[in-house]
Amino acid sequence: MLKLNSYAISSSNDIPDYIKRRRNTLSEKYELFYQEPLIPIKGTGAWIIDKNGRRYLDAYNNVVSVGHSNQRVNQAITEQLSTLCTHTRYVNDELCRLSERIQDKHPQGTWRSILTCTGSEANDLGMRIAMEVTGGNGFIVSEHAYHGLTGLTQTLTTSMDGYAALADRLQIKIYPVPAPCLSGDGTNNFLTGIERALDAMAIQGVRFAGGIFDSFFTSDGLAIKPEGFLRQAVEIIHRHGGIYIADEVQPGFGRSGTNFWGFQVHGAEPDIITMGKPMGNGYPIAAILMRSHLDDFIPDSYFNTFGGNNVAVAAAHAVLDEIEERDLMGNVRTQSHIIEEGLRNLPELCPAVGDIRIQGLSVAVDIVTEKGLPDPVSSLRIVEAIKKRGVLISTSGKSGNTLKIRPLIIYTLEESEFLASQLTDVILRNH
Amino acid sequence: MLKLNSYAISSSNDIPDYIKRRRNTLSEKYELFYQEPLIPIKGTGAWIIDKNGRRYLDAYNNVVSVGHSNQRVNQAITEQLSTLCTHTRYVNDELCRLSERIQDKHPQGTWRSILTCTGSEANDLGMRIAMEVTGGNGFIVSEHAYHGLTGLTQTLTTSMDGYAALADRLQIKIYPVPAPCLSGDGTNNFLTGIERALDAMAIQGVRFAGGIFDSFFTSDGLAIKPEGFLRQAVEIIHRHGGIYIADEVQPGFGRSGTNFWGFQVHGAEPDIITMGKPMGNGYPIAAILMRSHLDDFIPDSYFNTFGGNNVAVAAAHAVLDEIEERDLMGNVRTQSHIIEEGLRNLPELCPAVGDIRIQGLSVAVDIVTEKGLPDPVSSLRIVEAIKKRGVLISTSGKSGNTLKIRPLIIYTLEESEFLASQLTDVILRNH
Repeated sequence: MLKLNSYAISSSNDIPDYIKRRRNTLSEKYELFYQEPLIPIKGTGAWIIDKNGRRYLDAYNNVVSVGHSNQRVNQAITEQLSTLCTHTRYVNDELCRLSERIQDKHPQGTWRSILTCTGSEANDLGMRIAMEVTGGNGFIVSEHAYHGLTGLTQTLTTSMDGYAALADRLQIKIYPVPAPCLSGDGTNNFLTGIERALDAMAIQGVRFAGGIFDSFFTSDGLAIKPEGFLRQAVEIIHRHGGIYIADEVQPGFGRSGTNFWGFQVHGAEPDIITMGKPMGNGYPIAAILMRSHLDDFIPDSYFNTFGGNNVAVAAAHAVLDEIEERDLMGNVRTQSHIIEEGLRNLPELCPAVGDIRIQGLSVAVDIVTEKGLPDPVSSLRIVEAIKKRGVLISTSGKSGNTLKIRPLIIYTLEESEFLASQLTDVILRNH
Repeated sequence: MLKLNSYAISSSNDIPDYIKRRRNTLSEKYELFYQEPLIPIKGTGAWIIDKNGRRYLDAYNNVVSVGHSNQRVNQAITEQLSTLCTHTRYVNDELCRLSERIQDKHPQGTWRSILTCTGSEANDLGMRIAMEVTGGNGFIVSEHAYHGLTGLTQTLTTSMDGYAALADRLQIKIYPVPAPCLSGDGTNNFLTGIERALDAMAIQGVRFAGGIFDSFFTSDGLAIKPEGFLRQAVEIIHRHGGIYIADEVQPGFGRSGTNFWGFQVHGAEPDIITMGKPMGNGYPIAAILMRSHLDDFIPDSYFNTFGGNNVAVAAAHAVLDEIEERDLMGNVRTQSHIIEEGLRNLPELCPAVGDIRIQGLSVAVDIVTEKGLPDPVSSLRIVEAIKKRGVLISTSGKSGNTLKIRPLIIYTLEESEFLASQLTDVILRNH
């Protein structure tokens, strides 16, 4: 797959000093976005400003979901910093209150929380619980998934090289299934894939541990239709005794506009919910919720040095306050509709647009060749071209031909219209 | 091993509401310290203040190493929050400068850095690199170690239940060796243990991946003498083709007073250095440094959503500024000397004190019975008693009979004397 990695795909030998400095001290496995990398110096609201004073509408970063330099979140962090920052081995009522607030977003059943620092840590623990409960080591994931970068979670990250070798080394059996990315027979592919994976496990004598899915299949290219397909998948998983982990690191915290969690769009019932990215609007905080009976399957005790520290908790409360008090889920619906309207004529105007999928403020545009085949080269060209217009997006999907567009949930009418008009114009000129 | 876990060892049925609330929403695998848990509301300098206004000298928490509510660190975080918080896929010169500053602390050879959020993530990646380089899955660790809580690193965490079963599941072969905790023949035990582990691998056909050690063996009970034993261990590891990971999450950032890193005390030469806890004085930041040739063994690319974000980088710079500009390593030496002097007569005055070990501001006091056997019950009693006097410490070691005392590196003369006098008095009354 082609990557949005400047110096991996650059033919230029004229490497600037800041790149050389980076290469001399940081791992070369770090990527930089764009042919001409972004040098940001300021973020405010939905905008990033670079060192030349150029403004970019952020339609990519799903961490600072309630806005760059969000005042309420920053004030909460600053106040807590000057008060107390310690850990979960002391009493902290605000930690309990945060856990309750999050559990209230899907109150069906009883839950227990563990706070971590990253979504990777949450998924890593989720995998171990699934293995302990079932005694199994067989996992079903979508075929271009991202679930983290710890050793365990990297075995689930089918979108990156090396996952299979690592799974083999750690005796974890990964069964990738096609995500239901495209309209039409996508759902059938997905459900059939799950049934086939379970058949394969039975034949190979592999015990089933569970399935883990990003509820929006973000890295696979955004699979959203028809509503309910995830519920059907989960019913199959449960029928076969597996644990369903809803990876809400990307879709959670109201991005759909209709539901706080992505799985709720489908009426699916997870055993474990993991979350991260937007939870602290940039402050590292993540969490795992599990059905209360699963708690017994964590061996020994659990302690995460920074996970659930007072400042992280304060940041997360402020993010929830923003979402609730400003009705940002309502705003997601409003802005989603504006963007949808703005892109409505695009497939008709431009045969390079194969499909457009919109789930709240997750937007995917498939770019295809004249023959209707995936066109990752044009996709990257569009990403670079729209950056020159002052909009930041990326690509995703197995073929790298899906434009990955994730507006911040605080977008205004003007920002949504700007995004839609720039997208339309750039795609029309660059297909 | 007895734990400092209030309601696991409490016989009281009179459970307060805040504990019930905690149990109703958080994982029961979370521990709370002390029979009567601490309810802190404020931290300032070396002190924590509880809801009753009671002040506690913090001689336990090694995260807020440059002081609770440290002004310089908090101001750096606050300023960066209002400017920009984004990730490593955009250019960030301050990130490179941080990497350079850290690498300069041990400039022998060329290094590459990766920023993570937690020490667990750093060790997890270190293990994978060691396995990729060597093709091995055999690891040598000390027998009561803590190296993290991800799936991979939990296999190294021999101080907790379940590590062996998890290692078995993940096909990682763990060879615990006795830490050289006690004076006398401790070193021989350790080096002989490593040789025996390597013999066992050869017989069992297990390929050696490497050894990972907390340079102070903090969880094992603080093993520090004779200087150089770690260098000898590393020479054996290197002779057998293994990777040596120096886990500096606890000993690093100047805690010895004589060296920035713990391994430098012994003249050992690591292949990989991992760090965390005090790096951001509470802001979640951690890192891995590796010899530059090891970078090739990380498959695909590396991206950590929050790892190395602008705010984390600003916090880490401020911590380094504090250490360097206030000569806090000099302060560590000064305060270490005061504490050592204050405890000098303790073994003579009290036969319950088996041994005292001090490495900068890591202090260990072994509590033994009349027959000289480990006495974990008295150790816990001392921890509870000194808390009542307004000092926070804990226990460690395989037998749970080592008082684990980690003063903040900003201690003043008065604080060191208070700690030493309270320790002396409490131990004399509670053995």
